Amino acid sequence: MARRPRPRQLADLDEAAIIERLQRAFLHVVPKRAPRLGIGDDAAVLSLRAGHQLVATTDAAVEGADFLRDRFPPRAVGHRVLAQNLSDLAAMGATPIGFLLTLCAAPETALTWVDAVARGMAALAAAARCPLVGGDLSATSGPVTISITALGEIARGRALTRAGARPGDQVWVSGELGGAALGLEWLLAARSGARVAARGVLARLLRPEPRLALGRALRPLASACVDVSDGLVIDLERLALASGARLTIDASLLPVARGASTAQALGSGEELELVFTVPRARATAMRRAARRVGVAVCVIGEVGSGSGLIILHRPRARLARFDHFARR
Amino acid sequence: MARRPRPRQLADLDEAAIIERLQRAFLHVVPKRAPRLGIGDDAAVLSLRAGHQLVATTDAAVEGADFLRDRFPPRAVGHRVLAQNLSDLAAMGATPIGFLLTLCAAPETALTWVDAVARGMAALAAAARCPLVGGDLSATSGPVTISITALGEIARGRALTRAGARPGDQVWVSGELGGAALGLEWLLAARSGARVAARGVLARLLRPEPRLALGRALRPLASACVDVSDGLVIDLERLALASGARLTIDASLLPVARGASTAQALGSGEELELVFTVPRARATAMRRAARRVGVAVCVIGEVGSGSGLIILHRPRARLARFDHFARR
Repeated sequence: MARRPRPRQLADLDEAAIIERLQRAFLHVVPKRAPRLGIGDDAAVLSLRAGHQLVATTDAAVEGADFLRDRFPPRAVGHRVLAQNLSDLAAMGATPIGFLLTLCAAPETALTWVDAVARGMAALAAAARCPLVGGDLSATSGPVTISITALGEIARGRALTRAGARPGDQVWVSGELGGAALGLEWLLAARSGARVAARGVLARLLRPEPRLALGRALRPLASACVDVSDGLVIDLERLALASGARLTIDASLLPVARGASTAQALGSGEELELVFTVPRARATAMRRAARRVGVAVCVIGEVGSGSGLIILHRPRARLARFDHFARR
Repeated sequence: MARRPRPRQLADLDEAAIIERLQRAFLHVVPKRAPRLGIGDDAAVLSLRAGHQLVATTDAAVEGADFLRDRFPPRAVGHRVLAQNLSDLAAMGATPIGFLLTLCAAPETALTWVDAVARGMAALAAAARCPLVGGDLSATSGPVTISITALGEIARGRALTRAGARPGDQVWVSGELGGAALGLEWLLAARSGARVAARGVLARLLRPEPRLALGRALRPLASACVDVSDGLVIDLERLALASGARLTIDASLLPVARGASTAQALGSGEELELVFTVPRARATAMRRAARRVGVAVCVIGEVGSGSGLIILHRPRARLARFDHFARR
């Protein structure tokens, strides 16, 4: 009987060959404006449009903490870590111009796994028109660690921040919430038979969409914005703190994903929806802008004076005050 | 007898407190032009000077592969990983504008160690006027992994690349070579008694200086440039390949660090010296520019037509051709 060949590993290629292989995965990601120099020189050189500022963010994914290699499809691993970075650009209203990738992996990591991670990342990079412009490759004895820095541009002084919410503004959120937490629950419980049925449920966990078009549309309308990356409650607390305002959310208004609980909608991280505040007078313009970019949005609460975050639970009208600020 | 308290660990603080602590280490690093937004919003917003392009590079350090926690002083760990990134900016002739930091560490990592890493990094950041503008913090079950993206700016179209070397140009190098390899040899062999004597030898390994001022001075003079990060032979091969030229180096002209061998000067990585090509007619201007920035430079070879790298060893006039290109 022929012996089955050992699957090829990172250690079977030299660094240049691995980098070439990664670059190939991203070849179809044609930048809007070609970077003057990409991978292969000491650094990438990129141009911003005149009158624009640079927007930069970094976010890493660590095996075991942010993904499980035996549960998450490798394409999803690549998609998710880039999506989290692009979502930060979206929350600022910025347009991506490129990203840098650092991959730390053990030499025995299967090449097919790395290829699939790169393909998942490249598909999103293409959709977001965000080319890979640089990177680094390191051997590690520990879990796979993927670190990305995403770069974007924004018209000078037009960045959406967390700090602009004013009393009287309404609090809005895009899409649905809770799907990522529900998906993770399914993924961890799933036996192979349950997988197919769960496909719809898992999409939100495995392929969250950074709301880049919505973020850009929000620039002239929203007073403050943040993406739901650590969970609605935590992210809204940050917005309230930065704005020096009190946010009151009506839990019964939350757009809860089908099958998810209100608790999941309040706590689920990596949803990559945008939560933002809009002056009441712009509500109609806001609805129109959201329709134009094809994203559902809804009002979930309002901004008052004071500080902190209040979540109203109905029908019992239970008032739960989450006071994380007290910890500081 | 009073029990000695367990040293505080990352796990003893929540994420916000750790980030605050890291930020404090960098508080004295005042940016030339304050970033519009730094850590604390979804992304940093930075302005480039009019007529300038963005230069971006990323480089990571993994415990075990790039540093040994029990041998490298923590300040050196922080200094080195930022220095490697700044050196890539230097090799492009760019001026730093800020950097993003991703730290992946086990929850039981000692806070004092993290603090010292941050202090080493902050001291260099201050010297290079390169503020920390963003970051990410992740828990890992594996080795400490520090990933940095450094951002810089350069007058449009003025970036130094690896691709401009032309036949007739001379090959120059800054400073001395081999010291990092020699320092590592000492560090790995050192018993505590040998440490003090080795302090001078170790400086090159532990506190390599990115040649930012020299890189800027080279912009109007050099035809191509690369920093010595993987070893002179490997980095020169890359320059030869990118330029489509043949480089001939005379090993007897190498500025070998005291105590190091010629082989170490040829192979030592992370030296962070610049190696660059200059048209012969600009040699005098080159010497003058180097004097102005206070960095020693010397000619080690010349550019010819053809391809690849030739190292001439004297006095035996042994000619060793390093032909790594054949591997591709």
